Amino acid sequence: MRLVSLCVVLLLSTGPGFAQAHELDIVGVMNQSAVDWNNGDIDAFASSYKNSPDILFIGRKISHGYAQMLAAYKAGYPTREKMGTLSFTQLEVQPLDASFATATGHFHLERTAAGSGNADGYFLLVFEHTPQGWKIVRDDTTALPAVK
Amino acid sequence: MRLVSLCVVLLLSTGPGFAQAHELDIVGVMNQSAVDWNNGDIDAFASSYKNSPDILFIGRKISHGYAQMLAAYKAGYPTREKMGTLSFTQLEVQPLDASFATATGHFHLERTAAGSGNADGYFLLVFEHTPQGWKIVRDDTTALPAVK
Repeated sequence: MRLVSLCVVLLLSTGPGFAQAHELDIVGVMNQSAVDWNNGDIDAFASSYKNSPDILFIGRKISHGYAQMLAAYKAGYPTREKMGTLSFTQLEVQPLDASFATATGHFHLERTAAGSGNADGYFLLVFEHTPQGWKIVRDDTTALPAVK
Repeated sequence: MRLVSLCVVLLLSTGPGFAQAHELDIVGVMNQSAVDWNNGDIDAFASSYKNSPDILFIGRKISHGYAQMLAAYKAGYPTREKMGTLSFTQLEVQPLDASFATATGHFHLERTAAGSGNADGYFLLVFEHTPQGWKIVRDDTTALPAVK
C-alpha cells in the first residue's frame, strides 16, 4: 500500500510527461470529433483534420486534400440517420517524434436499418502537431465486411 | 520543344532532391517486398518492417510488434497458393519530416480459387528512416469486400 501511495505521489508531482500530454491532447481531439459527429455536425467533425491540400484520406477510395475529404464525408453521410452514432474503442496513441504521432483503434457506427445498418472497422490516423493543435494528416478507415 | 529540353537538362543537372531520393528509396523497399512475396519468402518480405515491438499492423485485427506481425502473415498465408502474386498500384509517397514518411496505394493479390481467390484493397504505411534504411512502423492494409 505504501508503494502504491508513493507511485501516485510521484505521478502527481512530476505531472504528465511530454509524450503523455500529447497523447491526452490527441485522445481529446478524437473524443471531440465523435461528439461533433454525433451532433450531426460534419463541418465541426472535419476540423479534426488539417486544412491542407496534402492530407490524404482512404475509405472506399483515396481522397486527397481537405476539400475532397469533406465532400466525400458529406456525400457518404447525407442524413443524420446515415451518420448514426460513432464510438471508438481500442484507442492507442503512439508518438513518432515531436511533430507526428499515430492513433489506431476500432470504430463502431450504430445505425438503424434505414441508415444502412451498423458499420465497424479499424483505422490508422497520422496526426501532425500544427499551430492549431494536433490535426489528422493521413486517415485509413476501412469498414470490415459485415459479419452475418 | 526547347522548353522541354531545358527542363530535362535542369532535372538531370540538379539530380534528385532530398525528398525525391527518399521517395525512390521507399518505392524501392515496396518493390522489393513484392518481389520477396512473389518468391514465397515471407521472412524476406517482413524485412521491409522495422524489427521492433512497437510497430503496429492492422489487417483483420490489430497486431503489435514484429514477431506477432510475422506470425500473423505466416498463419494467414501458409502456402504459396494462398500467397498468390502481389502487385501495387496508385503508389504515393509523402514525406512527413526527415525521419518519417507515408506510403499509400492499392494492392492486388492474384490468386487461384483454391488460394481463396483474388483480393484487393488500399493501404496506408508509415515508414521510419532507421540506420537499416526506410522501414515500415505502421501498416493499415484492409481487403475490400469482393465485388461480385
